[in-house]
Amino acid sequence: MSDFRLSFLEVYSVLKAELVHDPAFDFTDDSRLWVERMLDYNVPGGKLNRGLSVIDSYKLLKEGKELTNDEIFLACALGWCIEWLQAYFLVLDDIMDNSVTRRGQPCWFRLPKVGMIAVNDGILLRNHIPRILKKHFREETYYVDLLDLFNEVEFQTASGQMIDLITTLVGEKDLSKYSLSLHQRIVQYKTAYYSFYLPVACALLMAGENLENHINVKNILIEMGNYFQVQDDYLDCYGAPEVIGKIGTDIEDFKCSWLVVKALERSNEEQLKILYENYGKADEACVAKVKELYKVLDLEGVFVEYESKSYEKLVKSIEAHPSKAVQAVLKSFLAKIYKRQK
Amino acid sequence: MSDFRLSFLEVYSVLKAELVHDPAFDFTDDSRLWVERMLDYNVPGGKLNRGLSVIDSYKLLKEGKELTNDEIFLACALGWCIEWLQAYFLVLDDIMDNSVTRRGQPCWFRLPKVGMIAVNDGILLRNHIPRILKKHFREETYYVDLLDLFNEVEFQTASGQMIDLITTLVGEKDLSKYSLSLHQRIVQYKTAYYSFYLPVACALLMAGENLENHINVKNILIEMGNYFQVQDDYLDCYGAPEVIGKIGTDIEDFKCSWLVVKALERSNEEQLKILYENYGKADEACVAKVKELYKVLDLEGVFVEYESKSYEKLVKSIEAHPSKAVQAVLKSFLAKIYKRQK
Repeated sequence: MSDFRLSFLEVYSVLKAELVHDPAFDFTDDSRLWVERMLDYNVPGGKLNRGLSVIDSYKLLKEGKELTNDEIFLACALGWCIEWLQAYFLVLDDIMDNSVTRRGQPCWFRLPKVGMIAVNDGILLRNHIPRILKKHFREETYYVDLLDLFNEVEFQTASGQMIDLITTLVGEKDLSKYSLSLHQRIVQYKTAYYSFYLPVACALLMAGENLENHINVKNILIEMGNYFQVQDDYLDCYGAPEVIGKIGTDIEDFKCSWLVVKALERSNEEQLKILYENYGKADEACVAKVKELYKVLDLEGVFVEYESKSYEKLVKSIEAHPSKAVQAVLKSFLAKIYKRQK
Repeated sequence: MSDFRLSFLEVYSVLKAELVHDPAFDFTDDSRLWVERMLDYNVPGGKLNRGLSVIDSYKLLKEGKELTNDEIFLACALGWCIEWLQAYFLVLDDIMDNSVTRRGQPCWFRLPKVGMIAVNDGILLRNHIPRILKKHFREETYYVDLLDLFNEVEFQTASGQMIDLITTLVGEKDLSKYSLSLHQRIVQYKTAYYSFYLPVACALLMAGENLENHINVKNILIEMGNYFQVQDDYLDCYGAPEVIGKIGTDIEDFKCSWLVVKALERSNEEQLKILYENYGKADEACVAKVKELYKVLDLEGVFVEYESKSYEKLVKSIEAHPSKAVQAVLKSFLAKIYKRQK
């Protein structure tokens, strides 16, 4: 639990108020109200892990020195930029996936008054990020690096989303396309850059670091993002629904899950036939056959093995890092996800 | 006709090749092919007026001095950034408006293989702009100003689109919301900034100017954008379909057109009743009644009067500008649109 949760939530209200009074646009009352509702509905309702980890990481980088109010505000504002980025992706992903609910409420585009306006709302969310950055960071020496960082990470995320979308293209369900390298590529670009690397990179920039000197940190965080997604894929099938808060449907949805990739690797010809015939079908019996095969192939055991190997490797990489402060940042990330049940 | 059309088209191929080999993403063959097709389908097929006007304006700002190949390339690259921005808006607008055709071919999202992936393609188009800027302008002194400029203009465009969308909200057709000030606001933000101001602002930055010293130029271009949109609204009703290349449907679509705004201003109670009863209905008889009312109110005459007044005012503002080079830029814009028939 972050020490900064309260400050973080306060900063949201400040940023929202600034955005709906942005002098670059001449708001009508209707449009100001629209944006406020849209923000409240889509931005602050998640777990806020990504956002909070900017300020948590920054605090660790400062090695226990007391943060000024100004530093707290700026780190929170960067954290909110990541939450805004996440909201933008989610609003648009839900449209693309034709999803029904998100964070326990109907998806934004499902609201009768919203519909396809949600596409433009997604764009607005995205546009708020450079507005926040300009207002609060324009005079900082790292301003241009922040812009470059957010631009690069967004590009990578959209590119990862693209390979995910075009490999799961409806009407072209083809398991032979799925492999560990494809899985890693999708995870790395679609999730790891913005969820793991971006928060730490923001904290490093605020701490005056040059990101080019931290390629190693980036690689470790990408690796952690990969490990996180493998857990996610595992929990989709083996997690307790009452703990993870949803019933997994990766098998029905023909997802390029780590489990199916491992199953493909370990199957003999007969077992491959079972996979090809039953994966990606919204039929209970088919799902049961796939799960039975996963059992026969001992994917639970394969996962436990993967988890401990990954953990060891990550700890080793982290401890090889020359800075104790950076080690602390990376370890706090790892502690949050190791052996998680949800 | 721009002298630079050929160079401009050549630069497109260079930029495309760079984007599909961007080292920030590890392309698969499938994804590289997808992006190439998506770009060819959506980016270069328009009139290219916005893009070409960057290099045309830059040439005028240089007062006849021969441009180096480097300058030509950079001005064209900025022009293409605007065309990419336009493609991004159009791909997403067509989804929101459920449109059928665009530039003489099916809208991108209408292609069976594309569908809702078009949302992510729109995002990719948008993300290509900072990739192009970073690759070619990172070392220029005006790099950060370019990023700020594109960010601000995109924000304004999305905000203009928002007021347009929420005032035309299906199920809430309410003519009493329409006014000249709403019309101007939508036009200014949704169209004028990116179509008129942005190309000139790019040229000014390349020429080493500080945009804060050119608020006046911005205002003149916004005014020109407004005039351009009034023409557009006029031509939707009175233009020859074989000349403008489409059959106008603003009346059926309940658009906040300059014509309906003027009609509202000039109508007595009885005429208002006709408008309220017939505007925004996809019924030939209703459309005919609205057009009849426009005739009675002499909106053609009102337009001719508006056109000449606007023109005079613009010429006066332009001639008051201290720099002959800037005057030349503004006059060349005005000459392109004055009394246009399409």
